[in-house]
Amino acid sequence: MKAIVKTSAGPGAELTTVDMPSPGPREVLIQVTATSICGTDLHIYRWDPWAAGRIKPPLIFGHELAGEVVDIGEDVASVAVGEFVSAETHVVCGVCHQCRSGQKHICQNVSIIGVDRPGSFAEYIVVPETNVWKNPSDMPAEVACVQEPFGNAVHTALSTELVAKKVLITGCGPIGLMAIGIAKAAGAEQVIATEVVPYRIQLAQAMGADVVLNPKETDVRREISTRTGDTGVDVLLEMSGNPSAIREGFAALRCGGYAALLGIPAEPLQMDLANAVIFKGATVYGVTGRLIWKTWYQTSALLGSGAVDVEPVITHRFSLEHFEQGMALMDKGQSGKVVLFP
Amino acid sequence: MKAIVKTSAGPGAELTTVDMPSPGPREVLIQVTATSICGTDLHIYRWDPWAAGRIKPPLIFGHELAGEVVDIGEDVASVAVGEFVSAETHVVCGVCHQCRSGQKHICQNVSIIGVDRPGSFAEYIVVPETNVWKNPSDMPAEVACVQEPFGNAVHTALSTELVAKKVLITGCGPIGLMAIGIAKAAGAEQVIATEVVPYRIQLAQAMGADVVLNPKETDVRREISTRTGDTGVDVLLEMSGNPSAIREGFAALRCGGYAALLGIPAEPLQMDLANAVIFKGATVYGVTGRLIWKTWYQTSALLGSGAVDVEPVITHRFSLEHFEQGMALMDKGQSGKVVLFP
Amino acid sequence: MKAIVKTSAGPGAELTTVDMPSPGPREVLIQVTATSICGTDLHIYRWDPWAAGRIKPPLIFGHELAGEVVDIGEDVASVAVGEFVSAETHVVCGVCHQCRSGQKHICQNVSIIGVDRPGSFAEYIVVPETNVWKNPSDMPAEVACVQEPFGNAVHTALSTELVAKKVLITGCGPIGLMAIGIAKAAGAEQVIATEVVPYRIQLAQAMGADVVLNPKETDVRREISTRTGDTGVDVLLEMSGNPSAIREGFAALRCGGYAALLGIPAEPLQMDLANAVIFKGATVYGVTGRLIWKTWYQTSALLGSGAVDVEPVITHRFSLEHFEQGMALMDKGQSGKVVLFP
Amino acid sequence: MKAIVKTSAGPGAELTTVDMPSPGPREVLIQVTATSICGTDLHIYRWDPWAAGRIKPPLIFGHELAGEVVDIGEDVASVAVGEFVSAETHVVCGVCHQCRSGQKHICQNVSIIGVDRPGSFAEYIVVPETNVWKNPSDMPAEVACVQEPFGNAVHTALSTELVAKKVLITGCGPIGLMAIGIAKAAGAEQVIATEVVPYRIQLAQAMGADVVLNPKETDVRREISTRTGDTGVDVLLEMSGNPSAIREGFAALRCGGYAALLGIPAEPLQMDLANAVIFKGATVYGVTGRLIWKTWYQTSALLGSGAVDVEPVITHRFSLEHFEQGMALMDKGQSGKVVLFP
Repeated sequence: MKAIVKTSAGPGAELTTVDMPSPGPREVLIQVTATSICGTDLHIYRWDPWAAGRIKPPLIFGHELAGEVVDIGEDVASVAVGEFVSAETHVVCGVCHQCRSGQKHICQNVSIIGVDRPGSFAEYIVVPETNVWKNPSDMPAEVACVQEPFGNAVHTALSTELVAKKVLITGCGPIGLMAIGIAKAAGAEQVIATEVVPYRIQLAQAMGADVVLNPKETDVRREISTRTGDTGVDVLLEMSGNPSAIREGFAALRCGGYAALLGIPAEPLQMDLANAVIFKGATVYGVTGRLIWKTWYQTSALLGSGAVDVEPVITHRFSLEHFEQGMALMDKGQSGKVVLFP
Repeated sequence: MKAIVKTSAGPGAELTTVDMPSPGPREVLIQVTATSICGTDLHIYRWDPWAAGRIKPPLIFGHELAGEVVDIGEDVASVAVGEFVSAETHVVCGVCHQCRSGQKHICQNVSIIGVDRPGSFAEYIVVPETNVWKNPSDMPAEVACVQEPFGNAVHTALSTELVAKKVLITGCGPIGLMAIGIAKAAGAEQVIATEVVPYRIQLAQAMGADVVLNPKETDVRREISTRTGDTGVDVLLEMSGNPSAIREGFAALRCGGYAALLGIPAEPLQMDLANAVIFKGATVYGVTGRLIWKTWYQTSALLGSGAVDVEPVITHRFSLEHFEQGMALMDKGQSGKVVLFP
Repeated sequence: MKAIVKTSAGPGAELTTVDMPSPGPREVLIQVTATSICGTDLHIYRWDPWAAGRIKPPLIFGHELAGEVVDIGEDVASVAVGEFVSAETHVVCGVCHQCRSGQKHICQNVSIIGVDRPGSFAEYIVVPETNVWKNPSDMPAEVACVQEPFGNAVHTALSTELVAKKVLITGCGPIGLMAIGIAKAAGAEQVIATEVVPYRIQLAQAMGADVVLNPKETDVRREISTRTGDTGVDVLLEMSGNPSAIREGFAALRCGGYAALLGIPAEPLQMDLANAVIFKGATVYGVTGRLIWKTWYQTSALLGSGAVDVEPVITHRFSLEHFEQGMALMDKGQSGKVVLFP
Repeated sequence: MKAIVKTSAGPGAELTTVDMPSPGPREVLIQVTATSICGTDLHIYRWDPWAAGRIKPPLIFGHELAGEVVDIGEDVASVAVGEFVSAETHVVCGVCHQCRSGQKHICQNVSIIGVDRPGSFAEYIVVPETNVWKNPSDMPAEVACVQEPFGNAVHTALSTELVAKKVLITGCGPIGLMAIGIAKAAGAEQVIATEVVPYRIQLAQAMGADVVLNPKETDVRREISTRTGDTGVDVLLEMSGNPSAIREGFAALRCGGYAALLGIPAEPLQMDLANAVIFKGATVYGVTGRLIWKTWYQTSALLGSGAVDVEPVITHRFSLEHFEQGMALMDKGQSGKVVLFP
């Protein structure tokens, strides 16, 4: 089968032909019909320090997927051939403290699809039965495959109550864009987004942000103060990992507010904990992955009921062969979500 | 000034002329520009057993109001003459256990406007400074005055997370109708309402219910089972106080679901606690009044941002003189909210 | 092997000899070293209407157990021969909505050990790997086996915050007695228990209740009012299922209080929902089983750290052969927990 | 009357004679019988940068107090002459967003006793009626006056569930010491404390810590890992404000854990947000003041029921005249709480 493989420890990747995988007793084989590119995939492609420390080539990468089940292992009971499915990326151990107490998303022995085991940038993929999520048959494949990053946005945005709240979303990459739509659907009174790339600013407006502020052009702190009656926003959803955005986000948060952090800072940063968190009486939550399966139920409901239309975020579509065009667009910030069709 | 007064212990009320009230040191005088009729007012008008036990005539009743501040007491610091305001109906003691621990809405020494002290069916009313809520100047008076019952709907609906949830609302009187709009605004996946009066069924559809079921014509339990994949609804918002609706509501609730009860049963009822609550692992919350002031902030945000349009619920408008027409319409269930203009 | 078997549809049970079970691929075989009698077992023994409707003889019953793993199926990875274990009684499907969203304790396809499948009143039992809980090697077998009902008490008592709260526990059967110890360990300001059987009243005192009231001798409502400064208790833990205790419990609950219901009323009862729940602004939670595995972690910590000493609740010990003596004692209310040793 | 006054902008303070204050219409006059020294008082005494920026001499400082009401203003209704009381230090505005939505402890217009208005290091003090907390008549004055800092510990410790949890407390100043007692009373499975000063290590043991680790002598991270089965602690209560303690505390926190931060870092610090919070899926809460009045009810219950004995923390007692001895001891870390008796 065709697959995009990180063949050696260095930048780049190759579209090549590899052996078809076959499912073990509790696994299923999925024919991939759509698979989208995550920022993590770009890190692997570029071979940044994180990738160099974690990835063991050769590896098929990619982990956001939708497809059809074409074979199942002998012990599989809950999934059938022919079903239209997506997959949770975190393959969890089921027995650590976290797994056994409602926090599978931070399993201490996690194996990640496309990072620690073969991924979805391929015609076929094998995943454990326990990681399969069934999609409605009328969901477009490209929507089905972006449920995974949409789930990151859901986990972040719905980790607190948003209805009737003033919400700031810092960073309008694909997940930030999705969070805008989710916050609006959840009844946020005001959704303020910040972003510096004009292409993404337009997408943020298309997703329904009440206002998009460009920190390069606007005094964000003062503008937010004005728009919130000098009080600040109730909720910060941090999607950039950028130190300056993090600090400005906390500065804009009202006393007693809530911040969910999804963006990953590349390195430790200077934090004024006293003023950003302590005197403010703020609550901060670190977001990893998706709540298994609460987040998927929410994702399915938001997309299925039409409460959120994710299509504006899906800006580019390529065949698997042209994956490098997608990588290049993402690298320049000139895309929302890029979907590959094997 | 003109006022509607319950002059004696029995059915009916009179529009009459009474002395203008004047504000004490910490009170404000409001010129009432709109005041709407609550079910409680109908109980007082009809003089049902509850009213006979609680009301001490003569009494100006009515408590849902909007108006302009025309005078303030000497110690009033936070409200100014000329401001456009509404009022929280519960005048609380501030010193009981509940008041001192975040539960003012169930103050143990509450005095209720229009029940225990003079109400708003009049040209002027005096309320404590601490009960005043300031409205945006561009809010229509009829919307401003229905914020009080809208707040009951907000307190009920937002007492749990509704986003991506399947919600059943039993009973489409004015507060049930408002709850439909609120649940949709809060991102509910499905809003199912039940109601028997055709006039109200139409209003429920206008407020955005995904479906309105008439228990006289439909097997509600089976229909909900079908619409929820045999699982049941995640959330029940009980707005009727009707024993049959309460039982059917619990029967339709999924295991692990949540029920908020606002409707007041007229008398004790037979409950199958084992199956309705215990085996179900359900959570039940009893709703009284509005959270002070959390509910008002939410109300203001939902109405101010346009997330909910309450106008369809406001079906009738009369001058104070014609209040009896409003009472008659409400008595027959042929109205949403009825607003009086002094 | 020896086992207590409900051989036919009617009262009683027989100690008899049956074939040894053998574990399937994902199951483990446990040699039972201690197994205690639950109220459910007494229902099965007596053959009450519930048992007649649910149990299919022949059946080995019993489900509270501790023992040593003596064999494992070929796919078992997380449990080893020789380990000292207990078992969660609810064998869950893992794929229903509840299982997939953190509510396994109310799985829609549950199979219960000793009710729907062979139980622990035997020398050996087979349970799924996923139901095994590992015990510290120095935990007495009789304590290890009562962790299951202790878990019911933990689930009930710790479903809300108890620290610095006034707590009422209605009903001092074994689970109510355990709840007394748990509430004290969790920092309750006052633990008030109610019970009518003198034997149990003494046990309640031994478990640390600040006061035990006998409703046959005391005006419980007035006494609680006095002891709580006329406010009422913050928390009701209902352990009896008795209609009168339920009603008195709600009457003693303060406005804004919390009630967890574990006791199962035998039939529907008259509830004054308006005064018991709605005007009170109360929250009510129905308790079934144990949170999997949160409750077991809590149980293990409370017993392991010595925060709760459950020994006073374990009042009788018999060999399996003398199980009928245990049933008789429980029937008369003249016991705490009765443990059988196969 | 006698009072300790910061007379000029610089180090030190003077015991001097000033005019008696008299209460306004809604204020009460308290004869101070005990007043304890807070770290804040030491900052004011030393005249550190924070004090230089905030304090306007001349000022009577001090804010932890107990005493008897000796006069009340004409509008005071809820407090009577002769009552034994303490006071909440934060005088709040009552009308800001925070005050009106259950977050008075972070009022945007707060005035702090002994910082922004005359304090309690005096024979008499005037406080608003709304800040008075009534004590049981049999509570020792020295205990009654340390309820204020005890409330900081309560707010921090009880901001999450501690029962059956492993808890790390970093820093054993008076509030950290109190938190040890509170965590034990709340049913924590293990309370691990860290501290470098031997005097405080002994006090931490006296307050019931299961173990006290000295970071100067022990590899705290490894030791905690060993004591928690390689999982880490469930809860971090950060009481030191020390950058190294904060970082080590987060390192010791388990994935999915909870951290409450009360200690104030003197300046911004380097934080590895990715590993400390985000990948960890941690929740962080910043603590300021006491929840008004929830924290006071909890404080009263914990001390009144005997669940926590705070006496070991009260290590020194002086007359007002000898306040400088108390300041000196605190400066050297050779004290728990120091109480002054006017």
